[in-house]
Amino acid sequence: MSDVDGDVRVVDVKHALSGAIAPGTKVRINGWVRTRRDSKAGLSFVSLSDGSCFDPIQVVAPNTLANYEGEVLHLTAGCAITAEGELVASQGKGQSFEVQASSLAVLGWIDDPETYPIQPKPHSPEFLREVAHLRPRTNLFGAVSRVRHTIAQAIHRYFDEHGYFWVNTPIITTSDTEGAGEMFRVSTLDLMNLPKTDKGAVDFRKDFFGKEAFLTVSGQLNVEAYCLALSKVYTFGPTFRAENSHTTRHLAEFWMVEPEIAFADLAEDARVAEEFLKFIFRMVLAERPDDMAFFAERVEKTAISRLEAIIAAPFAQIDYTDAVEILKKSGRKFDYAVEWGADLQTEHERFLTEEYVGGPVVVKNYPEKIKAFYMRLNDDGRTVAAMDLLAPGIGEIIGGSQREERLDILDKRIAQFGLDPKMYSWYRDFRRYGTVPHAGFGLGFERLVVYVCGLANIRDAIPYPRAPGSAEF
Amino acid sequence: MSDVDGDVRVVDVKHALSGAIAPGTKVRINGWVRTRRDSKAGLSFVSLSDGSCFDPIQVVAPNTLANYEGEVLHLTAGCAITAEGELVASQGKGQSFEVQASSLAVLGWIDDPETYPIQPKPHSPEFLREVAHLRPRTNLFGAVSRVRHTIAQAIHRYFDEHGYFWVNTPIITTSDTEGAGEMFRVSTLDLMNLPKTDKGAVDFRKDFFGKEAFLTVSGQLNVEAYCLALSKVYTFGPTFRAENSHTTRHLAEFWMVEPEIAFADLAEDARVAEEFLKFIFRMVLAERPDDMAFFAERVEKTAISRLEAIIAAPFAQIDYTDAVEILKKSGRKFDYAVEWGADLQTEHERFLTEEYVGGPVVVKNYPEKIKAFYMRLNDDGRTVAAMDLLAPGIGEIIGGSQREERLDILDKRIAQFGLDPKMYSWYRDFRRYGTVPHAGFGLGFERLVVYVCGLANIRDAIPYPRAPGSAEF
Repeated sequence: MSDVDGDVRVVDVKHALSGAIAPGTKVRINGWVRTRRDSKAGLSFVSLSDGSCFDPIQVVAPNTLANYEGEVLHLTAGCAITAEGELVASQGKGQSFEVQASSLAVLGWIDDPETYPIQPKPHSPEFLREVAHLRPRTNLFGAVSRVRHTIAQAIHRYFDEHGYFWVNTPIITTSDTEGAGEMFRVSTLDLMNLPKTDKGAVDFRKDFFGKEAFLTVSGQLNVEAYCLALSKVYTFGPTFRAENSHTTRHLAEFWMVEPEIAFADLAEDARVAEEFLKFIFRMVLAERPDDMAFFAERVEKTAISRLEAIIAAPFAQIDYTDAVEILKKSGRKFDYAVEWGADLQTEHERFLTEEYVGGPVVVKNYPEKIKAFYMRLNDDGRTVAAMDLLAPGIGEIIGGSQREERLDILDKRIAQFGLDPKMYSWYRDFRRYGTVPHAGFGLGFERLVVYVCGLANIRDAIPYPRAPGSAEF
Repeated sequence: MSDVDGDVRVVDVKHALSGAIAPGTKVRINGWVRTRRDSKAGLSFVSLSDGSCFDPIQVVAPNTLANYEGEVLHLTAGCAITAEGELVASQGKGQSFEVQASSLAVLGWIDDPETYPIQPKPHSPEFLREVAHLRPRTNLFGAVSRVRHTIAQAIHRYFDEHGYFWVNTPIITTSDTEGAGEMFRVSTLDLMNLPKTDKGAVDFRKDFFGKEAFLTVSGQLNVEAYCLALSKVYTFGPTFRAENSHTTRHLAEFWMVEPEIAFADLAEDARVAEEFLKFIFRMVLAERPDDMAFFAERVEKTAISRLEAIIAAPFAQIDYTDAVEILKKSGRKFDYAVEWGADLQTEHERFLTEEYVGGPVVVKNYPEKIKAFYMRLNDDGRTVAAMDLLAPGIGEIIGGSQREERLDILDKRIAQFGLDPKMYSWYRDFRRYGTVPHAGFGLGFERLVVYVCGLANIRDAIPYPRAPGSAEF
């Protein structure tokens, strides 16, 4: 981005470094100081970041500046400045352009540089979570933020270009999507003066929505309504789990992507999931080469190469039943026994994708008893048209299914799972009125960010993580 | 979108009607019946919609089809079918192409067509809200859904192309953004067995997050953290108000867009707001001409022309103080008196934009007492650098401000508004550490959808509206 103010172009660091602006141009550049180095020749080298890209730009401030002694020599990490000067090709290693400052003004100092939490040195992720409001100023979280943005844009762009419509399913719900999963209650009742029914229960008729309300655990059932009218739709929004999980893989609040495709079977669902994931990875590598290079160098050596490998290869597909045989014959000692009818554990999934296939693999047609009621029963009567997409280094990254579009079988499964058919009367309507084969999948957005950036903890993949005991800021 | 299955191309209605597929091509098309008309010549004309665009396509089914008597003649509105045949230029009025069916299979019937809620006739919006899971099947809600999608894509595209990063600010928060606004509590406490402190209050230390938690009313304070590291950022996510408002303009759950721009003053903020709004309107008119033509014909005559007018003209700007004089001298009888220091009411705003200016107008520099604590105090000491963007036909559509970047003045305003400085200690950090001038604005997404589509009630601008007493589906 650049703008003009008199004969000075206001530019961001990304454009100043890109080569798109002719050397010799007079520029103004704003940002925050990363480091300052003073030479004996009477020059200070100020490394300046504005977050527009990974690299800072070097501002060369000569001691002829009026405020050189009084201000420039006092700049510390985090100070905000605006500099004007000529953009010139840099002599220094590892940088293309720099600014020869003819003026440098300080916009904001650091109050007590000694105690400023973001020092120009490595910080632990644990410490940085305590200062989540300042951590985007670090190399790591700046890069995560930009890559997260680009993944999100890729998601919207893929769906928009392929004829899908974004549907904002509700956050507050009075339905329970799967009859499972701990939910957060949403209420305005006065806790010190709860209204009660005749029978002594809490009277939710007096609550804001006239009944007990919760935060959504999935938009899938709601988005099916739009799928059966607009054909191709997707959700992309926050979802919630009130589970007391203190792991590196769980958040109480996270974003989920859920496409839903009419006239599609499980094969089409798997095809879309593969194309979608490859589209995202291609766009991240194309648009964030600087940030990805940083991850590969400092965080996870294979950050780039593993995405390239996924883009290059067609995904393998294995039936669950075959996967069980493969695992049994593997000769491996697993912590959890492998038995037809039991869900695959992470150790099994990682063996399949990392060792047996050596690449992404779609495992499909799981036993009906271990999958959700809305998944389509196969003709064998004992499996459903469900799939999990497994990738090396992470395991399950996408889970999906063809949906049960036949009302009589859906009703049997609702009963079999012990769910209340009355709760699902509106969902049953989709099978009563113009039902069609349809399929979809779910992708946990932060898990994808974790994978792309090579992070160790999902709490570092979202700006303000929410977990048991923690909802700061 | 189109795909190939043998010598048959699987196409959606949008592409079949677009002219991009050569007449004579053998196609398969899936969708839901809108109407069926039988001619005496032994043909049935089935109007088929798949939601990919406003118009349905006509499928011509001859009585030579094996299932003509048994199925085709029983098709009613809402039935799902798949048809194969030749795509040909249509002889009929108002349609470019049609499908001469060589086969037609029914995928899903309508269970009891007499009682199917979505009949091929006009329905009231009130009735359709009761069947919100089926209303996307109507012309009106199909069009609203597609336009809503395109507005959302335009928002992401504008910001991405202009160097902004999407930041997902938290939904669950333990902060209260403005010290005002009714909030929903988020909790997992057992209401029948509430933990209590020694003093008899509810012990929120036992709640999921270890303290009292709420649904966010705005992401602004949180996103400022990212603005002061990445320079240009925006939020776009759900926000909540637990207000007992039964109006056509309020929702308990709605989506909000909040850009935040470092190194920007109020003038730059207004410039971005204008450019942003024009970008969105241009994209909607370019990408959804069919839906917009429907709104102009059936919902709001000026739906297209008022967007074109806003795109064409530079926005006027008036100081609040001047606006008050203009209103006083207008000779109008207003329900609310106009007095310097009082907030402008909708009637005042609409007079300014519709009658005085006759176009969009930015009113700026409001009295400091009536605006939020974080807005930047002007040098006059009695106004703040706030702005409201008013547009004909709707009034306020965007509200923004330059933020108070000076710690001493921010502290005074926190005290003046009676807020607890401890609650804002992290927000104060942004002024202690590398503070810079910055500005931003907020746009209520559903209000924009209401405006673009010409809707009368905001509950029709979101898939599943949440309001007092109502959180169905």
